[in-house]
Amino acid sequence: MKRIAVMTSGGDAPGMNAAIRAVVRYGVTKDLEVYGIMRGYAGMLEDDIKQLNFADVGGIMERGGTILKTARCQEFKVDRGRQEAYRILKKHEIDGLVVIGGDGSLNGAALVAAESDLKVVGLPGSIDNDISGTDMCIGVDTCLNTVVENIQKLKDTASSHERAFIVETMGRNCGYIALISGLTTGAEAIVVPEVKVDYQILADKLLAGKKRGKVNSIVVVAEGAASAYTVARYLENKTGYETRVTILGHIQRGGSPTVSDRLLASRMGSAAVEALINGESNIMIGIQGNSIVPVDLNKALQTRKELDMTLYDLANTLS
Amino acid sequence: MKRIAVMTSGGDAPGMNAAIRAVVRYGVTKDLEVYGIMRGYAGMLEDDIKQLNFADVGGIMERGGTILKTARCQEFKVDRGRQEAYRILKKHEIDGLVVIGGDGSLNGAALVAAESDLKVVGLPGSIDNDISGTDMCIGVDTCLNTVVENIQKLKDTASSHERAFIVETMGRNCGYIALISGLTTGAEAIVVPEVKVDYQILADKLLAGKKRGKVNSIVVVAEGAASAYTVARYLENKTGYETRVTILGHIQRGGSPTVSDRLLASRMGSAAVEALINGESNIMIGIQGNSIVPVDLNKALQTRKELDMTLYDLANTLS
Amino acid sequence: MKRIAVMTSGGDAPGMNAAIRAVVRYGVTKDLEVYGIMRGYAGMLEDDIKQLNFADVGGIMERGGTILKTARCQEFKVDRGRQEAYRILKKHEIDGLVVIGGDGSLNGAALVAAESDLKVVGLPGSIDNDISGTDMCIGVDTCLNTVVENIQKLKDTASSHERAFIVETMGRNCGYIALISGLTTGAEAIVVPEVKVDYQILADKLLAGKKRGKVNSIVVVAEGAASAYTVARYLENKTGYETRVTILGHIQRGGSPTVSDRLLASRMGSAAVEALINGESNIMIGIQGNSIVPVDLNKALQTRKELDMTLYDLANTLS
Amino acid sequence: MKRIAVMTSGGDAPGMNAAIRAVVRYGVTKDLEVYGIMRGYAGMLEDDIKQLNFADVGGIMERGGTILKTARCQEFKVDRGRQEAYRILKKHEIDGLVVIGGDGSLNGAALVAAESDLKVVGLPGSIDNDISGTDMCIGVDTCLNTVVENIQKLKDTASSHERAFIVETMGRNCGYIALISGLTTGAEAIVVPEVKVDYQILADKLLAGKKRGKVNSIVVVAEGAASAYTVARYLENKTGYETRVTILGHIQRGGSPTVSDRLLASRMGSAAVEALINGESNIMIGIQGNSIVPVDLNKALQTRKELDMTLYDLANTLS
Repeated sequence: MKRIAVMTSGGDAPGMNAAIRAVVRYGVTKDLEVYGIMRGYAGMLEDDIKQLNFADVGGIMERGGTILKTARCQEFKVDRGRQEAYRILKKHEIDGLVVIGGDGSLNGAALVAAESDLKVVGLPGSIDNDISGTDMCIGVDTCLNTVVENIQKLKDTASSHERAFIVETMGRNCGYIALISGLTTGAEAIVVPEVKVDYQILADKLLAGKKRGKVNSIVVVAEGAASAYTVARYLENKTGYETRVTILGHIQRGGSPTVSDRLLASRMGSAAVEALINGESNIMIGIQGNSIVPVDLNKALQTRKELDMTLYDLANTLS
Repeated sequence: MKRIAVMTSGGDAPGMNAAIRAVVRYGVTKDLEVYGIMRGYAGMLEDDIKQLNFADVGGIMERGGTILKTARCQEFKVDRGRQEAYRILKKHEIDGLVVIGGDGSLNGAALVAAESDLKVVGLPGSIDNDISGTDMCIGVDTCLNTVVENIQKLKDTASSHERAFIVETMGRNCGYIALISGLTTGAEAIVVPEVKVDYQILADKLLAGKKRGKVNSIVVVAEGAASAYTVARYLENKTGYETRVTILGHIQRGGSPTVSDRLLASRMGSAAVEALINGESNIMIGIQGNSIVPVDLNKALQTRKELDMTLYDLANTLS
Repeated sequence: MKRIAVMTSGGDAPGMNAAIRAVVRYGVTKDLEVYGIMRGYAGMLEDDIKQLNFADVGGIMERGGTILKTARCQEFKVDRGRQEAYRILKKHEIDGLVVIGGDGSLNGAALVAAESDLKVVGLPGSIDNDISGTDMCIGVDTCLNTVVENIQKLKDTASSHERAFIVETMGRNCGYIALISGLTTGAEAIVVPEVKVDYQILADKLLAGKKRGKVNSIVVVAEGAASAYTVARYLENKTGYETRVTILGHIQRGGSPTVSDRLLASRMGSAAVEALINGESNIMIGIQGNSIVPVDLNKALQTRKELDMTLYDLANTLS
Repeated sequence: MKRIAVMTSGGDAPGMNAAIRAVVRYGVTKDLEVYGIMRGYAGMLEDDIKQLNFADVGGIMERGGTILKTARCQEFKVDRGRQEAYRILKKHEIDGLVVIGGDGSLNGAALVAAESDLKVVGLPGSIDNDISGTDMCIGVDTCLNTVVENIQKLKDTASSHERAFIVETMGRNCGYIALISGLTTGAEAIVVPEVKVDYQILADKLLAGKKRGKVNSIVVVAEGAASAYTVARYLENKTGYETRVTILGHIQRGGSPTVSDRLLASRMGSAAVEALINGESNIMIGIQGNSIVPVDLNKALQTRKELDMTLYDLANTLS
């Protein structure tokens, strides 16, 4: 292993820059040359690749987004596109590749590992926390704190008006953001794709809370479970509550990463380089408990991440 | 003047609690009895009124929303409703009234001043900054900082994806929030109700920015000027840019008030009580430059607040 | 188990209120009566105890500090004091006790378990993260984010002046806060009680960073390792750098808890009640990996928590 | 006027980057060439000067510190040093100079105006708000919000322990930061250089607050008035209160500028260029009320800024 490359792909997540910094600095310290591929697989195909040195990644850990940028790429999905990509990487004499991203990006990484002789390590970067084989993905903790800070602001105004707020969070297949942000803001109800909603029960819960003297009601809805507007309309009809909808949208992707995300990304980034040096490939670096571990990339991609239902129940009990 | 009451009405704004605290504590210090009316004119009609002492307003200055809550009230709009309200206030031997709120609330205050023998002072509380006779309303500075922090988060992800973000802020008749938040985040374009938009120019500006190497484009749109979705669709067609829409919504009303809002509210709240003691009525307390001044309430309500076009031009020059 | 009590003791930590809320609400849901003891062992001795219901702990999860307050208590350290305390708890027919706090508070809890027939469960609440048997204590994540946000502000001014800042964090026997905040801000050097400092190497590192073009240098020092002023003086002499000292002090204890602390406290608080219901005693609830586990209280108190030296090395490698 | 230069000098203040951005972009738009002088007068003497274009100041408005850096410079205080500086500026054919900084920096600017044929405009950048001729300096609003956020965190822990916290803020000759942060956090007492402290009255106020049931006491002390440690010792003796000292230090200089500072800096920066174009010199740009105005530089420097004593009284009344 002499020369490795690092890229970010798919939706950006806070902490990606901390991971890039760790890959570059750990690599350089281990006498590797490290290259950055711009805009994911798109930049790979356009040969938008440049060497990164220790100083190039100074002052980036605290910044949201990704200095390598990211993009979607249709050409990489076809065989001929990927062959061209491998040719470009070979031209640069790149032996190892670190791919930071979500589901789709890691699927791309698995293809590279299968079809070329590059060593490939994936890092789970996804605010949805929807990737198996790791307890946490890079970006989740920051996203959760952003969501909770904003729900806290809604509670100010909700309490003043005695309204119900329906908050839609990200989470296409996975209700993790909605669940944890709901639990930690004392939301009246949490709607996630993993659990079938009984709107009648939900409405009853709101009414019970009102009876008990609760002056605000927050319902957190994962985008993959339902539209916040649908939920709002239903609840207005059933409860007579005045409701307001908030779609948090892309602000959930931004912001300076939290300590936890910086730490996770730093540990994962250096572990990825260490794994490449040790000749490993077709793996993803995950965190399980407190341990940074290599997991089989394909297995991680083929396993559906389960939601911790004890937390779902806890949220219901405590709110 | 022996006994005064304070209320908040209409949309809540950060800093209302600081104003309530100032009214109560300044009043008590001046040997007045101070009452709090709950939920605006609705609570007034329901006789939901209680005495507030020095300690009752401890620890509230830093909290968003309003401890007196707020509501809309149809009954107060009809004559009979208001007569009933005056009867209730008279029963409590309340001589003076401080109303904190926006346009509608202050219109109510003007009616009380005209129709009853109560002395009435209004305080401008409105995140829209749409009230004449004052440079700033309570809540505007906090709202602006919330908007700007969130746009800053969008810029992280916008830069990573090279996308244009269309951000919709509050501001029904008044583009102040959109203008100032756009100016202070270097937004590519700002769409306000006070200025007719030329979408072609807007599209050209975005394309010029892209050509110049700008990696993100933010367009800030006041809700009263256009729907962010309409703007997004138009720009996608004209520029080929990938766009994303963010509707900031009610998070703009929440949050712990900034120093500036706490200070403004404290000054206005104490000035309102001082004015009542001096026998003034049918006025609003405004800030003009650095001076806290009484302004004629009806005049303030009948004058349309102008947007400072030099700031609009400055935003265009600097972005 | 019919009636349990909860208390906070020692230094306060963000998230204690979330733990109190969880104890109360989980307990009430399980048909227990829950009492709050004010000001730790001091309030216990003064019989400052009151019942807490579901609604009493509404709106507290997001607040720093502890609604039960906390204090130091000399009388509880002597035998006669403790016997009086047990008498008071018995009078209230309290069977179970949840003690939230650090080392000293949990030592008190162990004494109660040993000397009385109360069932006792401890929760580790300490921003220092110096308690064995748990990966994380309640309050650590919030404290770390506060420290890092402030170091980030120092970096702004450090870069502008090309100065070195010596930042002193909390951590009497344990360098965890200093280590993690140093790692996640790219600090030039980290001084912790667990590692003997070689000031010469430290000075060399700073000079090397300067040579490499680094415009700011941050040295993070745990209060238990050295005084920031001593470190500053030494470095000024050795490097000729202009230095500035910042003692973060008690702001490290405050602030609205992060999502991670709210979640941890909610899980631990409910687990504590569950353990009491199951008849367990003389245990502490810890988190190991992702699992909430009971650990032997005395063993936790007698074991010294080790610092993860791989993170110390990683910090050195990446900065 | 063909070519102008901009520099920052003295202590840095949040918003300086927004001012630099405005000077550069407004200048370029008006067909001027704009140069940046690095590290204040020190960089001027070392000919550390480079042209800045529109894109060079992209993405800097939101960042604390100053991209031009700042330093102290002894050589500029002697005649020969300044003559050398003028020679260097002449060599670059620089006709106009914008100096952003505090007292000392603006004194330097006045010397340049007096001794050379350069046109010179000063901008008041100082977190202390100690410059006459302007209501607000660049950086004050951000500093105040940083101070207040941190005092808010101290109140969490102060309330939990029933302690008094003595907080030392910046402000060598001017108590503005202490006054406003004290007023907007409900501090028990505020100690500023402009008002002689009667420690006995201060102690009595604390005791009265305690009697009234106040659970925390904050005393804010400007560094120029007294040492927080002295105040703490005195109060402990007089009241028996347990006290804790916090020295906020240089974190007061950092952080992303608030909306208000960005706006002020943008307006002042563009006004400075406009003034140079109009041939004005030896002025400072100030804000008075809402108006951006030119003021005589020497007069501003020779007038002592007064503290608004009505705000001091208001703080006492409301706390």
